[in-house]
Formats: sequence, structure tokens, C-alpha cells
Amino acid sequence: MAPSPREASPKLSQAMDDCRDRVNKTISSLLPPTDLVEAKLFDAMRYAALGGGKRLRPFMVMEGARVFGVDAGRARRVAAAAEFVHCYSLAHDDLPAMDNSDLRRGKPSLHKQYDDATALLAGDALLTLAFEVLADPETHEDPRVRVELIASLAGAVGMHGMVGGQMLDLIGEKQEFDVGTISRMQRMKTGKLIAFCCEAGAILGKANPAHRQSLRNYAHDLGLAFQVTDDLLDVESNVHELGKPVNQDGKKSTFVSAMGREQARTRAQMLVDQSISHLRVFDEGRVDLLKDLARYVLERRV
Amino acid sequence: MAPSPREASPKLSQAMDDCRDRVNKTISSLLPPTDLVEAKLFDAMRYAALGGGKRLRPFMVMEGARVFGVDAGRARRVAAAAEFVHCYSLAHDDLPAMDNSDLRRGKPSLHKQYDDATALLAGDALLTLAFEVLADPETHEDPRVRVELIASLAGAVGMHGMVGGQMLDLIGEKQEFDVGTISRMQRMKTGKLIAFCCEAGAILGKANPAHRQSLRNYAHDLGLAFQVTDDLLDVESNVHELGKPVNQDGKKSTFVSAMGREQARTRAQMLVDQSISHLRVFDEGRVDLLKDLARYVLERRV
Repeated sequence: MAPSPREASPKLSQAMDDCRDRVNKTISSLLPPTDLVEAKLFDAMRYAALGGGKRLRPFMVMEGARVFGVDAGRARRVAAAAEFVHCYSLAHDDLPAMDNSDLRRGKPSLHKQYDDATALLAGDALLTLAFEVLADPETHEDPRVRVELIASLAGAVGMHGMVGGQMLDLIGEKQEFDVGTISRMQRMKTGKLIAFCCEAGAILGKANPAHRQSLRNYAHDLGLAFQVTDDLLDVESNVHELGKPVNQDGKKSTFVSAMGREQARTRAQMLVDQSISHLRVFDEGRVDLLKDLARYVLERRV
Repeated sequence: MAPSPREASPKLSQAMDDCRDRVNKTISSLLPPTDLVEAKLFDAMRYAALGGGKRLRPFMVMEGARVFGVDAGRARRVAAAAEFVHCYSLAHDDLPAMDNSDLRRGKPSLHKQYDDATALLAGDALLTLAFEVLADPETHEDPRVRVELIASLAGAVGMHGMVGGQMLDLIGEKQEFDVGTISRMQRMKTGKLIAFCCEAGAILGKANPAHRQSLRNYAHDLGLAFQVTDDLLDVESNVHELGKPVNQDGKKSTFVSAMGREQARTRAQMLVDQSISHLRVFDEGRVDLLKDLARYVLERRV
């Protein structure tokens, strides 16, 4: 029987599950349990970082690393660092000061489970831990590689990346953006971290610039496709499927609000085709799952 | 006329002012003005990072660097990074979720000047920028040095450092700590970042381990002295002198609440003497201002 068109292929599904379990183990080992007085902070970090989720970003890191034959143990540390950053951004995003979301991945969001102060601090600590993990010699023996990973991640998630995109998102609640500004916002908000995840394997594997650029192009298009489908899911899903409040973007500038559902879906399809085409420079066997992943982004339900 | 016993010596005072002005220029150059839609984020970062303050931490970086003959331009980048981290922690600390402080350095705190969401994001961006600045080759040509700075800073300000200390601080509002736990909390909350600042020059200058340890010991004792005098100032000052709300620590576990004002002052004096004694391995001419700084920490009004 052919797989449902809206689900990941069995092979991709299996690979993503395996990746999630292994990366979760790495994440868990980097957040050891503690009986210190401040254990609540560690508990909150674990809750934020191990609370479920598909682990799309770690999967991109692991598959990008596979393209260049990078040791999986090292790649998993980078995957964990990327996930720490993603989870910190969700924790801060959900705070009353920002989106005030009570639900995340079908469970109480971090500040509902603990409290606002703990969620704020756990986010801060996760971001810091990401850089600490990357700076550790266990991630790579060459300090040049480690510092390049750090520079790339910081550039992707700071004022010119994710955080700048979140600022744009807030501004977009009160002011209508054109498609160009929405594209820039989404590229900053989610695209740059996704690009880092795909590129990290090339950095770890000291890939040649052309190969690195191909993966970056793949990531760029995939990231935008991801965001367009995210906007579509927000208007098309129900809360049970998505595990977080839906129609949150009602007043926000999104691709769907700017170009309508039909055009948004066409655009997502085009972006996915384009992202896959960037992978043609690689051996088919090394990028098959990255291609499947691109198709899945288009067809996912959550 | 002899200087007032509660003020910095003219020489120290002049050196601190010069350092502040130069580091402020570096900070300003790292936060360029922008006409982008998200300029509010950059403005808020500038407000948080250039809103006054004595620049004690940058001064420690610069003086520590001077001990080892490190280029001042490089040291200033590290000084700026340390100040970014300090300012991010103040911005998040002042949020309603944490201390809910309306005043900082005699002016509206960041979230009062902007809004909670912007203050949260500006803090996140400042923390990220600190690591980005350290990872940049302009900070040092040797990636080994850059990655060591990053690892040290991340270790100092994450879950086992500053953020962990802030968690302890929150817990200490509801639970009485003994002097041992208060010491650990303060070492984490402020001591470790101060130690990083003092040690950074040794990392930049590739100092031998013994010299590095001496500076670390100086910083350790100075950091604790700083915290004890901070607790004393909180009960002894008025809001006009301190530029932030006083007696905020009323219900918190502090050195003063644990050992009383008299014993706290004696302890601060002892720690300052001890910190100065660690500097005896260096040429007098290179550490004179670090010694003056230690005495100033004891005698400061703000």
C-alpha cells in the first residue's frame, strides 16, 4: 500500500524516529539530573528540550553530516545545540510578554508548567548551553571548526537572524507587510537556523565551498517552504493535530494573509522542487532522506 | 586634599572614565544604527548596553589584558562582549517575570522604556551578540584563543554560573539559605562573570597557568567582596545614590541577612586584602589599578 500522501514515507519516518531517539539521549546526557538547590532550573531545561517534537532541525544536522561522512557522535552534539536554541526560542516565545501561549507540543508550555521567571531563565540557560556544547573539544578536535560553528549559529539566531525575525513578527502584528518583508522576516525567524542546521555537516566535514553552498541553497528554499506550510497549517489544522493553539496568526502578516491559500500552496511546491534540485551535485544515496524530508515538509499535517 | 575615603582615587577614577568611554565606542560600533523595519530591537539593545554604568567588568578585562601586554583593541572587543552579557542579565532581571524593576542606573529600565517583549528579545540578542563578537577573527587571530574565550564565558554565565545563580536567588526568596549556599549563589550570580573578565586577558595573552590562576584567585575574592558590599549598599543607600530601587533584598537571603552588617563589612575587608595579595606575583606597575579597584569595591557608594 502506498503511504498516505500527507505522511512521511516509511523510510523517512523510521530515520526521523531513530534520529530523534538518539539525539534525545545526547540532549539528556548534556542536561544531567541534579540534587542541587537550583535543580528546578535543570528540570525546566529538560522539560523544554525533551518535551517531544519531531526534531526536524537535529534531523537536518544529522543528514547534512551524513553527506560528508561526519562522525555521528559529533554531529549529534551539534544537533543537540541547534535543538537547545530552537527550544529556548519556543520557551521565550510562549511567555506572556510575547505570544502568551499555554500549550506547546500538546502539553502545558514551559511557563505554565513552572513559572514565568523559571521559563525565562531556562531559555537563557539553553541558549548559553548551545554555545558551550559547540565550544567543547568533544564536538570537534579542530578549534577552527568549533569557532566556525559558533559564529554561524550566533549569526543565524541573533539580531540579524532569529531574534530580529521575532522582532519583525511583533511589529507585523500592528503593521501590514508586503511579501518581500514577510519573506525576509521568515528567513530570519526560522530560515537562518534551518540553514545553519543543514550547513553544520559541511562545516564539520570541512566540505568544499561549492558543496557547502549547495546545502545552503537547499536549506534556504526548504526553510521558506517550511514557513509557508506552517502558515497554511495554522489556518487549516485544528488544535488537536497541531498540539498548540491554531489561528494564532489571525492578525499577523503571513504568507497566507499576503497571497492567499492557493498561491501559498503553489509557492511551497515550487520551493520544495527548487530545494531538491540543489542536491543534484551529491551522490543520490547520501541525500535521499534530505529529498524525502523536503517532500514531507510540503505534505506534513503537523 | 586627600580624596574622600568613599571614592575612587583620582588615578583610578581617570582610568575607569577613559576605559568606559573607549569601551562605549566599541559597543556602539558593534551596535550600528539601522533603518530596518526591526530597528526598535537595535535601539533597545543600545539603550540597554549604553545606558550608563561604571563599566566595572570592561575595566577588569582591560586591566587584566594590560598585565599580559595584550593589544587594547582586541581586549576592548572582549570587554564589550562581557558587558553585553552583563546588560542582557540586567534587562531580563528587571522584567516583571523576575524582579519587576522600573528603574536601572537612574533611568527607566529597558522594558519600561520599550515593552516587555522588546526587552526580552533585546536581552536574547545581546547574549547572542557576545558570542558572535568573541567568535570573530578580529577578536584574536588564533581560533584556539577565541574558542577558549567562548567556552569560559559560556561556563561562567550559564546553568552552572550566572543563570543558575539567578535561579538560586529566586529560590532564596522563599527559603532561607546558610552562608555556604549564599556564597555559592553569589559566586554563580556575579562572581563567575567577574572571574571571566579578569581571566580574559590571560587567555588573550596566552599566559602561563600559574599567572592565570593568580588572576582567577584575585577575581574570585574580589567578586565575593563585590557582592558583600552590594548587599551592604542595598540596606545602607538611598534610591538617589544607587540609581535603582533599594531594600529590594528585604526578603532575600543575602550576606547581610545571614551574618549582619558588621560581620559582612569585616568579611568584605578581608576578601579585598586577600584579593590584592594574589597579585604579588606580577610587576607592581602592571597591577596597580587592579589593586586600586579592589580597594574601591570596598569603599564605593554605588
